[in-house]
Amino acid sequence: MPEINFLLLIDVLGTASFAISGARMALQKQLDVFGVIIISFVTSIGGGTIRDVLMGNFPVNWMRNELIIAVILVACIGTMLVRGLHQKLSTTLFLFDSLGLGLFTIAGMSIALSAGYSPGMSIAMGTISACFGGVIRDVLLNQVPLIFHKEIYASACIAGGLLYYGLTQMNVSQHLAEIVSIITIVLIRVVAVRFNLSLPAIHPSSTPTEK
Amino acid sequence: MPEINFLLLIDVLGTASFAISGARMALQKQLDVFGVIIISFVTSIGGGTIRDVLMGNFPVNWMRNELIIAVILVACIGTMLVRGLHQKLSTTLFLFDSLGLGLFTIAGMSIALSAGYSPGMSIAMGTISACFGGVIRDVLLNQVPLIFHKEIYASACIAGGLLYYGLTQMNVSQHLAEIVSIITIVLIRVVAVRFNLSLPAIHPSSTPTEK
Amino acid sequence: MPEINFLLLIDVLGTASFAISGARMALQKQLDVFGVIIISFVTSIGGGTIRDVLMGNFPVNWMRNELIIAVILVACIGTMLVRGLHQKLSTTLFLFDSLGLGLFTIAGMSIALSAGYSPGMSIAMGTISACFGGVIRDVLLNQVPLIFHKEIYASACIAGGLLYYGLTQMNVSQHLAEIVSIITIVLIRVVAVRFNLSLPAIHPSSTPTEK
Repeated sequence: MPEINFLLLIDVLGTASFAISGARMALQKQLDVFGVIIISFVTSIGGGTIRDVLMGNFPVNWMRNELIIAVILVACIGTMLVRGLHQKLSTTLFLFDSLGLGLFTIAGMSIALSAGYSPGMSIAMGTISACFGGVIRDVLLNQVPLIFHKEIYASACIAGGLLYYGLTQMNVSQHLAEIVSIITIVLIRVVAVRFNLSLPAIHPSSTPTEK
Repeated sequence: MPEINFLLLIDVLGTASFAISGARMALQKQLDVFGVIIISFVTSIGGGTIRDVLMGNFPVNWMRNELIIAVILVACIGTMLVRGLHQKLSTTLFLFDSLGLGLFTIAGMSIALSAGYSPGMSIAMGTISACFGGVIRDVLLNQVPLIFHKEIYASACIAGGLLYYGLTQMNVSQHLAEIVSIITIVLIRVVAVRFNLSLPAIHPSSTPTEK
Repeated sequence: MPEINFLLLIDVLGTASFAISGARMALQKQLDVFGVIIISFVTSIGGGTIRDVLMGNFPVNWMRNELIIAVILVACIGTMLVRGLHQKLSTTLFLFDSLGLGLFTIAGMSIALSAGYSPGMSIAMGTISACFGGVIRDVLLNQVPLIFHKEIYASACIAGGLLYYGLTQMNVSQHLAEIVSIITIVLIRVVAVRFNLSLPAIHPSSTPTEK
């Protein structure tokens, strides 16, 4: 029972954070109401949907989960209604978004581990769950996905996933492993954004640009 | 027997309309013959394919249906051959496209209802069937999907879907419910375009733009 | 045993070629390390993934195949490390890419034929396997897919697929049919690029551009 509630809380908080961040980006692009709702939805459930499709879990997760749909709608419509509030809540929302990142990574990874996938593949499934909703959002908004050229994002998921696997191998209780790994992902992201860290971009050739 | 023919007619007419509208947009972007065929295909079958993937119906609908493939190819190649005709047939094609919208919504919704989904989820599946072929088309043509910022489109599907569910609950015959709902979707779209109605775009902040 | 090795060689060579070409294009867009890896992956396994999803083969192919994942990672990281080499190896890489095109077409087509699909549908599945990784790559890099407006690419796959089907109907040994069809696809592509051939773009209207 507490187990169920903890997983549920993960889902609800992570989903709401991603729905809000999706809605905010759609608002910046001046989409109409329907467009904002779709982008909000896709940001929230896109990563888990890709994971479920790749693994062959049908119907995909959100279709079996009316609570998640309600959470997204409330978060999205709330975001449209209280637009002025965003600027003030900017830091809070960034924290929620980072929390969503950590939560979705570990939740997605657990699903793959339970289904018998290798640790490496499970980390990939966790990272896809956490990051690819944002990829679909960016594709629909007609921009190169942010995570391909800006910020530490997927790297935080991979690091957290490795830690989670390491901890579970060392007989740490599953709950503790989950919490520590999620906090690690959040911390990596927060530190990276605070100190403006990013992965190196690789320049197409090492030849001098001027001769 | 008449049942089968009616559903078949829905599929053929809707598919052809969407194939033509996809081909026309690809022609405007000056794609080559192969590109036009793919965009035409994707516009026609993309929405139903996403619905089938989400629900776990495999192989997806068009792969089991050689008639649909033939209809798309004929409609698409016809569109390439008689390009001059488009301008003259503009209104007719708009009506067909609206008919396709209505037909695909109700067909997709019926599939989901038969599979035991809730009314809300079934309306979502109907709307996805009708609208997301156009979304994939726009993504492939590298533009923000039209339905996210222009025209009443998805809203018409949702309204028609609600009406369809209401009618079936009131013991109206299924055929009548289908026809009335499809006509409603077509009318909403026609009226919206005629009077230039659209959903409100939501501006990112309520602060005055000039100070 | 030799059968298995031959199919394996197909997979490895084709996969590596596509991984390298994906990585090179991502490098040109100055993505970060993670972005380059994802684009490289998607270019390699995207087409086969779409094929598997449409047909309902789950989990999709690359998730069951750790060798393929290793090949992509090695090819991708190698491409990032030896960037200067690309210009010198340009012709070699083009040949590998064409080889990948041929190999993936025939491999994808064989999978569909074995599953009982019609020859036409199987050629479509082969072409999707070979070409749609590049389509996803281009969508993620925010450009109209190259194969929709440039070069003979998909047409070569379709021609090779038709030849393969013809040969198997004429009691040619499967190995010979595979090799001949793959070489044909490679040759069509090489000749097309050498002589700068492409499918005609279709202009939106036949009215004169100047009056």
